[in-house]
Amino acid sequence: TELELQLAAAYVSDAQYNRNVCFEKTPQGIRLYNLYNHWGMLLVTYFFIILDLALAVFEDPALIPLPLWATFLAELICLAVFTGRLVHFAKVIPWQKFWKDTKNICVVLIILLTLVDMLIYGSMKAFGYYGVRWSRVLRPLFLVNITEGRQVRRAFRSIRNTLPEILYVFLLFIFSILIFSLMALKLFGKRKLVTNEGTPYFTSYLDIVFELYVLVTTANSPDVMMPAYNSSFFFALFFILYILINTYIFMYVFLAVVYNNYRKHLKEEMKNLVRAKRHKMVEAFRILQVKHGGEPVVCQSHWNQLVRLVQPDISNSHRELLWSVCDEDKKGFIGKVAFLQLADLLNIQIITLKSHIHPLQTWFPHLYNSHPSRLVCQMVQHKAFVYVYDFIIVVNAVFIGLDEENPLISNAEWAFLVLYMLEILLKLYTYDPRSFFSRHKFWNWFDTIIIIAALVATTVNFALKSSDGYTSRQVLDIVFILRVLRLIRIVDSVKRFRTIINTLIKIGPTIITFGQLIIVVYYIFAVVGMEIFKDKIKFFAPDSTASAQNYCGNPLLKDTAFAQNNYCRNNFNDIVSSFVLLLELTVVNQWHACALLTSGFTTVTHTAARIFFVLFHIVVVIIIMNILVAFILEAFFVEY
Amino acid sequence: TELELQLAAAYVSDAQYNRNVCFEKTPQGIRLYNLYNHWGMLLVTYFFIILDLALAVFEDPALIPLPLWATFLAELICLAVFTGRLVHFAKVIPWQKFWKDTKNICVVLIILLTLVDMLIYGSMKAFGYYGVRWSRVLRPLFLVNITEGRQVRRAFRSIRNTLPEILYVFLLFIFSILIFSLMALKLFGKRKLVTNEGTPYFTSYLDIVFELYVLVTTANSPDVMMPAYNSSFFFALFFILYILINTYIFMYVFLAVVYNNYRKHLKEEMKNLVRAKRHKMVEAFRILQVKHGGEPVVCQSHWNQLVRLVQPDISNSHRELLWSVCDEDKKGFIGKVAFLQLADLLNIQIITLKSHIHPLQTWFPHLYNSHPSRLVCQMVQHKAFVYVYDFIIVVNAVFIGLDEENPLISNAEWAFLVLYMLEILLKLYTYDPRSFFSRHKFWNWFDTIIIIAALVATTVNFALKSSDGYTSRQVLDIVFILRVLRLIRIVDSVKRFRTIINTLIKIGPTIITFGQLIIVVYYIFAVVGMEIFKDKIKFFAPDSTASAQNYCGNPLLKDTAFAQNNYCRNNFNDIVSSFVLLLELTVVNQWHACALLTSGFTTVTHTAARIFFVLFHIVVVIIIMNILVAFILEAFFVEY
Ligand code: NA
Repeated sequence: TELELQLAAAYVSDAQYNRNVCFEKTPQGIRLYNLYNHWGMLLVTYFFIILDLALAVFEDPALIPLPLWATFLAELICLAVFTGRLVHFAKVIPWQKFWKDTKNICVVLIILLTLVDMLIYGSMKAFGYYGVRWSRVLRPLFLVNITEGRQVRRAFRSIRNTLPEILYVFLLFIFSILIFSLMALKLFGKRKLVTNEGTPYFTSYLDIVFELYVLVTTANSPDVMMPAYNSSFFFALFFILYILINTYIFMYVFLAVVYNNYRKHLKEEMKNLVRAKRHKMVEAFRILQVKHGGEPVVCQSHWNQLVRLVQPDISNSHRELLWSVCDEDKKGFIGKVAFLQLADLLNIQIITLKSHIHPLQTWFPHLYNSHPSRLVCQMVQHKAFVYVYDFIIVVNAVFIGLDEENPLISNAEWAFLVLYMLEILLKLYTYDPRSFFSRHKFWNWFDTIIIIAALVATTVNFALKSSDGYTSRQVLDIVFILRVLRLIRIVDSVKRFRTIINTLIKIGPTIITFGQLIIVVYYIFAVVGMEIFKDKIKFFAPDSTASAQNYCGNPLLKDTAFAQNNYCRNNFNDIVSSFVLLLELTVVNQWHACALLTSGFTTVTHTAARIFFVLFHIVVVIIIMNILVAFILEAFFVEY
Repeated sequence: TELELQLAAAYVSDAQYNRNVCFEKTPQGIRLYNLYNHWGMLLVTYFFIILDLALAVFEDPALIPLPLWATFLAELICLAVFTGRLVHFAKVIPWQKFWKDTKNICVVLIILLTLVDMLIYGSMKAFGYYGVRWSRVLRPLFLVNITEGRQVRRAFRSIRNTLPEILYVFLLFIFSILIFSLMALKLFGKRKLVTNEGTPYFTSYLDIVFELYVLVTTANSPDVMMPAYNSSFFFALFFILYILINTYIFMYVFLAVVYNNYRKHLKEEMKNLVRAKRHKMVEAFRILQVKHGGEPVVCQSHWNQLVRLVQPDISNSHRELLWSVCDEDKKGFIGKVAFLQLADLLNIQIITLKSHIHPLQTWFPHLYNSHPSRLVCQMVQHKAFVYVYDFIIVVNAVFIGLDEENPLISNAEWAFLVLYMLEILLKLYTYDPRSFFSRHKFWNWFDTIIIIAALVATTVNFALKSSDGYTSRQVLDIVFILRVLRLIRIVDSVKRFRTIINTLIKIGPTIITFGQLIIVVYYIFAVVGMEIFKDKIKFFAPDSTASAQNYCGNPLLKDTAFAQNNYCRNNFNDIVSSFVLLLELTVVNQWHACALLTSGFTTVTHTAARIFFVLFHIVVVIIIMNILVAFILEAFFVEY
């Protein structure tokens, strides 16, 4: 029946996209569920999640200030959309199931808390009080708890399960730092050594603990050991031992524990996933099965209807291909085992390599088949053609490196553009344009877009120059970027490079999951950081003449290394600056200037602000970055 | 016969220690071979290798200068020992085999080259010319090419096999840096930006390449991006993209490729090892086999003789245990399969857990069995006893942290010493001293040695103080170190900590192999570094009054960050300083101050000196450190 087919299609679709939702098995239940999974709905949801997150750009402390009512209105719309989505989901699945699922409760709670916070903050503002928009910390959780955030949720679940194991190593690590600090206090505290800045060296226990923690990240090496090393050679041994144990052994043990556990938990999750998928497919089979010679089978006509329902845009030839894979013996029906493959088969991308006839051949057969025309085609298909263009790219690279003020050089650019255009045209003449621009021909697309963009930009630049006598710096920037990007094409000529790039492209989805993970963490730290540090450190444009720019607008920073190094722009004054700063802190994972950065922020607030930075380091470097290593190693082992 | 038994024993011994040497099968061949493998010979060889390597301490540029004839004499003795060892080996194995083995040819070549170098250098010096002892670079190769350096050789072989794979990723990585540098030149070169030091920002291509290479190591982040970031926010995007691609993606791809290949090659090596071991054992079996009921077997008497030959110090009970494992059915003979286990069985450490009777019970049975004595034993065995002493350790930690000038605190030290001594004595009273001090009771040994040493040191310190009124700083240092070390014991009380520590101890042998690997690399770089940079940068003792100390004795360093940061001690003036400096460069793997360190060395020589540092970074951080990760991850996965 129609309902049964619909139900089976829903099951197959769930299996195909690894969904595991227990929807209601009524006609309108299935219809609602299909609507719920429609890509348009997903797009809308993700749009509003991004909008909700992006609100931080416009809220105080804002990069682009907007009035409070505008951001409040936008946020209310977002919340309404999320509520609508949640109500939709509640209609799809049974009521009890809805309230048993943590992620639904989470979303409800976040929405309620956000409303409460908006109410409090709005009334505080209205009466002129100081308020904190604390619920912004919860925003990234929408990204995790929405039904489609499965990958991210899985990653977070794996992290949570890994935490107990990490905790013990972490405690041992902290113990080791405390013991070394105590030893450092006893060894150096009474020696009256001074640091390079002239302050007493290693006299306060808590400062030593912090300095040695930073040393684990190698940020303050070798500065932290120089006073001791200068006083006696043997003290270097203390630091060498410290670094060996805490930087190398412990950091790699962290990696090993995170990697080991993460892999274990992920394998467990994958097993469950496969089990759920199989279960769904078995359900679909049970619905469609008919008896044939005592054995349950699915006949071709049902199967065809099912596939058309699951994937309406599938071509007939593609569907027939899938059937022939399942029904190898051409019996007209398939058994359970063959049926269970369907979800995986539908996930396989099939590239149709039809050798189209070149349109020129259809339009001007005589001309296209003539001798000179064939010669051109042979030339383009020849290996030497690739080598010649590789050589041109290398020459081009040299020209780009030379000074473009020279008229010879700047005119040569036109020659190169013509050469590149010629290459594309020749290729289009030789190969069928439809296959040249087919979906998986990444480099052809890349080439064409870059060259055409370069042509446009260079022309605009030339027009501006000849009319005004000078060009806009922005246009010139774009011209330069496009010129350099053209050179990347040479990578495609070396086979081993292609392999590596393809592997990198294949691990892309993993990286996207990881990207969501890191955005969640960054957003939370950025929002907290903005509340604590906003406007404590001010940035003045380079052409500013204010004397305050020498100390980032905060007298406390006068004559500090932070201000002297011109770090004023590294601040928490808006969400974008915060993200850049957090990235700097991550990158300098073994934070070099973090010590310096941190010192800037502790100077303007309180030494306890170190806790914020240490916490960030623990979360991001010890846990998140090790997870990234685990992600990339695993993905690489599978793909390479 | 005796010869056959000797031969079989040699095979079993080879299998047991994973040796694979094709020695001559004559009585004196076997005798020579056994002598060659004698632990005394190994000890002598390693002693002279270490002596040879340590000569760098006494040679120009020397930490402890010795006359040339002294170091030459020592080196000649070392070479003589190595030659002797080689001749011994040549007598053991057939002549053709000897010259087919690369490692033998290597050692011969190194010895010859060293002699030539010594001759040249000696005569240059004699005539007052400047000479370079270039053959010192070859010294660490003795460590690799000696017959016993199997593990290290295996590691190097795996690295060599991994190189081609790494090379392509590396080329792609370099290409990426070159492209980004070109883009940076075009974007920033004409903008007239200045760095914090007031020098032009990003105007020379080669400087940009170097700066961006350093940025991969995150050493100059965020300084390198600050001028661009200050000028426009969008330029931060350039650097963020650069860091994501080159620091994260590429560095982790390096790790993945190294790890993947290294593991693959190591597995191959392990397979060969197991095959060779099996082959040796089969040979031994073939020699000893007798027919019994048509099947080849080895009878117990032959087996006993064999085991006694292989391991002369084995106890009778241990040997009988091994036999009973092999001959499960007590037939008095064993087949091939059971025989092949022997090599592995001999490698298993058997801990004899005999419950000795306490000596006090034998000497004073009445007293030891009395009621109060039993009460004491019960108390010591009680859980609370451990908790009480953990609490004492914590209190002790607080006391150590407090100021020891206070007489109360310094007297409390005696109380703690008494408490700790009491603990050991009580335990010795309760448990049998022989099992308390058995070989695998690491913590008991640790405790006892630390406490007794602390007792001695504290007493010496007290005696010095009461006689002279002041103590030697060195004695005090030792006292403090011992006091703090005592606290480590608390780790043993937490079960999870014990697991982690045990895992770390078990991966010890892996770390030792890695240590040899890193010593080889460090030594080569240190020797080269000393030749290039010796005495260019001088260190003055902190109490020196020479004005030259402000610029490390080199006017070129006047007013440079290197001198201002007091980095003068980071130099290549002797082998020990070189090792410390190289360790700093490794640690700051993402070299923070390396940029600064490097700048110091390029200032005093030439910009090309950067090549030395970049090469070091590539070898150590990209290859060696990733191998360390592979080592630790693999070892951890097996053990944890
Ligand atoms: Na660093």
